Amino acid sequence: MEAAAASLAPPKPSVERLLALAERDMAGVDALILEHMESSVPVIPALAEHLIAAGGKRLRPLMAVAAARAAGAKTVEFRKLAAAVEFIHTATLLHDDVVDSSSLRRGKVAAHLIWGAPSSVLVGDFLFARAFELMVSAGSMRALDILARASRVISEGEVLQLTRAHEIGLTEAMYLEIISAKTAELFAAAAEAGAVSAGASDASVRAFRSFGMNVGIAFQLVDDALDYSGASGELGKNPGDDFREGKATLPLLLAVARTGASEAAFWDRTVERLQQDEADFARAQALVLSTGALDATMDLAYDYADRAKLALKGVGDPAWRVALCDLADVAVSRSA
Amino acid sequence: MEAAAASLAPPKPSVERLLALAERDMAGVDALILEHMESSVPVIPALAEHLIAAGGKRLRPLMAVAAARAAGAKTVEFRKLAAAVEFIHTATLLHDDVVDSSSLRRGKVAAHLIWGAPSSVLVGDFLFARAFELMVSAGSMRALDILARASRVISEGEVLQLTRAHEIGLTEAMYLEIISAKTAELFAAAAEAGAVSAGASDASVRAFRSFGMNVGIAFQLVDDALDYSGASGELGKNPGDDFREGKATLPLLLAVARTGASEAAFWDRTVERLQQDEADFARAQALVLSTGALDATMDLAYDYADRAKLALKGVGDPAWRVALCDLADVAVSRSA
Repeated sequence: MEAAAASLAPPKPSVERLLALAERDMAGVDALILEHMESSVPVIPALAEHLIAAGGKRLRPLMAVAAARAAGAKTVEFRKLAAAVEFIHTATLLHDDVVDSSSLRRGKVAAHLIWGAPSSVLVGDFLFARAFELMVSAGSMRALDILARASRVISEGEVLQLTRAHEIGLTEAMYLEIISAKTAELFAAAAEAGAVSAGASDASVRAFRSFGMNVGIAFQLVDDALDYSGASGELGKNPGDDFREGKATLPLLLAVARTGASEAAFWDRTVERLQQDEADFARAQALVLSTGALDATMDLAYDYADRAKLALKGVGDPAWRVALCDLADVAVSRSA
Repeated sequence: MEAAAASLAPPKPSVERLLALAERDMAGVDALILEHMESSVPVIPALAEHLIAAGGKRLRPLMAVAAARAAGAKTVEFRKLAAAVEFIHTATLLHDDVVDSSSLRRGKVAAHLIWGAPSSVLVGDFLFARAFELMVSAGSMRALDILARASRVISEGEVLQLTRAHEIGLTEAMYLEIISAKTAELFAAAAEAGAVSAGASDASVRAFRSFGMNVGIAFQLVDDALDYSGASGELGKNPGDDFREGKATLPLLLAVARTGASEAAFWDRTVERLQQDEADFARAQALVLSTGALDATMDLAYDYADRAKLALKGVGDPAWRVALCDLADVAVSRSA
């Protein structure tokens, strides 16, 4: 009943146990990251370093490393895949911030506000290409297939979010489809590619993929909840950003559904038509809290974290598996 | 002396001979392109089709196909690489147009003006990822390596151009480095990957790569010349765009060097500080013509076309080689 207990009263989970196990591997991944963000074109390492070297929890490469080790990796080729995963992630962050005109990322001024949107777009392309160079050097065509597919699915999720972002009538199913593609797919692919590089059986590979997918969904649900709980400042973002962009995330969708006709005009103006004044976010936040939309979003996140741990039951090396499950708990414990 | 004769008095070259030889292969490439730009997210095929299905000469996939056939390809796996090359090219066009805020592309309104810059960035990412999915399905790790590296070099060339674009003191060597990276590298990689997929010898692979590189440089030199000759409307672009963006292309750099102190203030204002009025392009154009900067740029393009043909001397299947050399002539015959 470990999983259920964790979801009821999380005991301040952390990735320390996992980081201790993965210390040498992650140092190797970091070295690969630093080496491959080099370029003879000066602005590229400067911009990449702003984002990569300065922050980030490296959760996705950690997922790839832990899956590879849990699946019994005999070589360290998976480190290249882990570094590639971080590059894909960083490339999408750079493009995302341009797309959303975000002002903060990882607690720092977003790169496009320093170097300009064109540089962010092009350095994103550089990192994306570097990711594939790293994957080629890892030598696994199957891992390449997984991560190429994931990159495509992510871009589809981003476009889907972009084109349907302001629909306050978005269904929960469509919301989950969007976050599965834009966020969870990379967690899933990281775990899957790690397991594949270790030569895991098909059943194990599926289990690791499922673990990553469920952790990723939990992770995004919490992210979206934090934007309304006022604690997203700790993630290095501005609280209320999603609302100000009119992003139809689950807390908002649930609040809209639960407030019904009485607030229809408010949501229509602030989200669909994006006509907001300073006080609107506080009102939206109050409605998200009072309707229980925030709690419901967090409950769903706990569900997905539990599903993640269930998927790994009996799979792979026990010490690594237990540490890997910490990742699921950490994904849902980032609230304040 | 065929090459020299062609460069002195070009007999209206065309790729007809090559297209006739490659007809079935290119139909196969087109089918792959159409199939792989599909997505369940509606805006993606719409935007991709705007750019891909409607226009473009498919010179880069044609290069890959012809190199593969000239090198004696036994299977048609190279078609997937050729389609991937076109996707990489289209992705860079989409991102380029956002970076440059261009208004026309292939004679049509640029995609970002219809669907918005965010969609152009994200659909570019989609096409880039699709390119790698196609390459994985082609099954050649060496071809993947070549095209991943090319994608990275292209992004470096784009950043280099972006950060040094307004320097009227740019050297010809640096200009050539930029166009080699941002344009010629993909031609080179297309030819190289085609030859590799056909199992060509290392010496042959180098020859095809050199052919592609030299054709690509010639191609970009002519592109840059046409922007001042007034004929770029035929390429589906606005004449004078490079000048209005303050892009330090070779015709401009040569004109700046050749006009000396007398026009220093004009170039400084219009190119370095980008303070232009309506009449400035006509004056710049007149200076590019009167100083012989335009002719010198075209002469250099002819040189590179000749080098391309020389690189292929005695390499591969004669019928395909001769047709492939038409590509070099076509690259330099697009003037009006």
